[in-house]
Amino acid sequence: MKHHITTPSLLLDKVRCLRNIERMVAKAKDANVQLRPHFKTHQSLAVGRWFRDFGITKITVSSVRMAQHFLQDGWDDITIAFPVNLLEIRHINDLAAQARLNLVVENMEAVEALQQGLTTPVGIFIKADTGYHRTGLAISQASEIDALIAAIRQTATLHLKGFLVHAGHSYGARNAEEVLAIHEESLRQYALFRERYNDRAPDLIFSMGDTPSCSVADHFPGVDEIRPGNFVFYDLSQWQIGACSLDDIAVVMACPVVAKHASRSDIILYGGGVHFSKDRVKLSDGRTIYGMVVPVDWDRWQMPKTYNFIKSLSQEHGIVSADPALFEQTKIGDVLHILPVHSCMTADLMKKYHVSDGMIIDDVLRLS
Amino acid sequence: MKHHITTPSLLLDKVRCLRNIERMVAKAKDANVQLRPHFKTHQSLAVGRWFRDFGITKITVSSVRMAQHFLQDGWDDITIAFPVNLLEIRHINDLAAQARLNLVVENMEAVEALQQGLTTPVGIFIKADTGYHRTGLAISQASEIDALIAAIRQTATLHLKGFLVHAGHSYGARNAEEVLAIHEESLRQYALFRERYNDRAPDLIFSMGDTPSCSVADHFPGVDEIRPGNFVFYDLSQWQIGACSLDDIAVVMACPVVAKHASRSDIILYGGGVHFSKDRVKLSDGRTIYGMVVPVDWDRWQMPKTYNFIKSLSQEHGIVSADPALFEQTKIGDVLHILPVHSCMTADLMKKYHVSDGMIIDDVLRLS
Repeated sequence: MKHHITTPSLLLDKVRCLRNIERMVAKAKDANVQLRPHFKTHQSLAVGRWFRDFGITKITVSSVRMAQHFLQDGWDDITIAFPVNLLEIRHINDLAAQARLNLVVENMEAVEALQQGLTTPVGIFIKADTGYHRTGLAISQASEIDALIAAIRQTATLHLKGFLVHAGHSYGARNAEEVLAIHEESLRQYALFRERYNDRAPDLIFSMGDTPSCSVADHFPGVDEIRPGNFVFYDLSQWQIGACSLDDIAVVMACPVVAKHASRSDIILYGGGVHFSKDRVKLSDGRTIYGMVVPVDWDRWQMPKTYNFIKSLSQEHGIVSADPALFEQTKIGDVLHILPVHSCMTADLMKKYHVSDGMIIDDVLRLS
Repeated sequence: MKHHITTPSLLLDKVRCLRNIERMVAKAKDANVQLRPHFKTHQSLAVGRWFRDFGITKITVSSVRMAQHFLQDGWDDITIAFPVNLLEIRHINDLAAQARLNLVVENMEAVEALQQGLTTPVGIFIKADTGYHRTGLAISQASEIDALIAAIRQTATLHLKGFLVHAGHSYGARNAEEVLAIHEESLRQYALFRERYNDRAPDLIFSMGDTPSCSVADHFPGVDEIRPGNFVFYDLSQWQIGACSLDDIAVVMACPVVAKHASRSDIILYGGGVHFSKDRVKLSDGRTIYGMVVPVDWDRWQMPKTYNFIKSLSQEHGIVSADPALFEQTKIGDVLHILPVHSCMTADLMKKYHVSDGMIIDDVLRLS
């Protein structure tokens, strides 16, 4: 690849990225669902504009700060898909004054605090739990949901939009069939919600989230909106789940080689947990891995014929367990290219992309 | 605690931090070893000045960029304790022109590249492996070490300083006895090196690294320099290893409470992998945890009477498995205080500290 990398760097293949966006846009259109992509994965105003070129006007973010970040580039229809943080009411009011803002609630404390603190109307989604059990309300908690709906309906500044779901347990799937089974179960749950609330509230929408389901499924009956995020880049986690091919992964880490150990066939990279994050994938053979080496042609990375993985990461070191061919051909001072396990976390750490056509994007949101 | 936290924030208790520094300074003095603390944990110019107040003048860092960062605040005796990254030779030359710089090598490729590329003399440590097996040369690789020494000695710009060791396998220890056993084995290995090289090179020094050994051991026979870093803050990993008490941990994350789930006794925090990192500790009872809740008095966090842990982290969510008392007393909109598993990684993500006396330090190095 034509670059002048001297330290661990995140490269973005614009061709693969645009193909991922285009495919999800087409799928949403075919399935007649609204695509409201989650921008927490890329966090970049420039990548956001690529979405805009495909006609996207509504987005999802995971924090008030991220909403502020994208608002400054003209995004004015934003869902913050995280249980509303009541301590940020002042910033929420600022946002609501400038954008169509949707918030997520799942308890009466939040509704009451918004009743008291909001100065501008917002849309409200109730967080529903269809099996992930991280957060949200299950259909069995109907009395709590009923009470929330009643309280929201009594409040002029709260406009009830519908139910928001993130079926994050799809990340535990290990093939497309398992993803589809989780998706089918989510659809059954939506039907229960709809059955219960359709008479009282026929206008409530269902918004669902996870990249595995949105990548693998083609049909979304009863769903009005999808909010995948990771698909813009994909990564080894999604590959392991069966949600993408290796060739769909649009980001790669470039890491200098600083040492080799022939007795262990290890290659030592400058590139560790502060660059990749410590996220890992457990392969079906039991190995835990932190990245995969891919070969590079003159301007793009290619699919590997054999798999060589990062087997461990410390703060700044990555250790590649290399097969004889890779070990032999790799020299100290080379740069190896590594597909990341979790592109959202790696992008969040790296803060900027080197786009493979040569342009450097460094307008990524700096969290904290 | 008197603060106005609205988003996940890293608090630093200056009293505990100064006590940690003072204790390590005293230990080094008593043991008659040079203390060259590793600054990768805090990465802060302000915290660096606290060390300077204790007479520290020599430091360790893990990257060229971090060396540049501290050089700007007058640190001019710096060891980059990472196998030298040959791709950064230009910046290394810049640094060497302004500071006493020590580099680490472990292969002939690095020595040859330095022979050709260095424009200013530097100190050189040979990376030795005393059992961690991440990187470095073992005493059994004597012919390689001999060749390196000969090549370094023939080069005017390379001044051989000695051997540098990081006994990182001490992180696998689960009590002080296990740490001491690893330390004793390292000392035995140093003796072997010394025996072999003392005649030819009586001036070579031994520099050792890890916080567990430096915290638990009081005696360092045959060691000339210690380079611990994490001890400035400590964390749950060090507590689990037996290298510190909970009361020694000088940083805590403050995280807003956004939801509660009574059926599971879960408290949902705004605070996830992008704030804490995904580093984890496996307790002796088999549980994997990502943080521990500590109570707070009017201006300091206190030791908990019962242990409540973060049981899982996703990108922005942390899930606390709460006992009945904590669940009951915690309200949505509260802030919980969480000891981190790995303070180096958390500080690197958070980028700034809120010091508990009210001063805010935000001059942390921004990696990328």
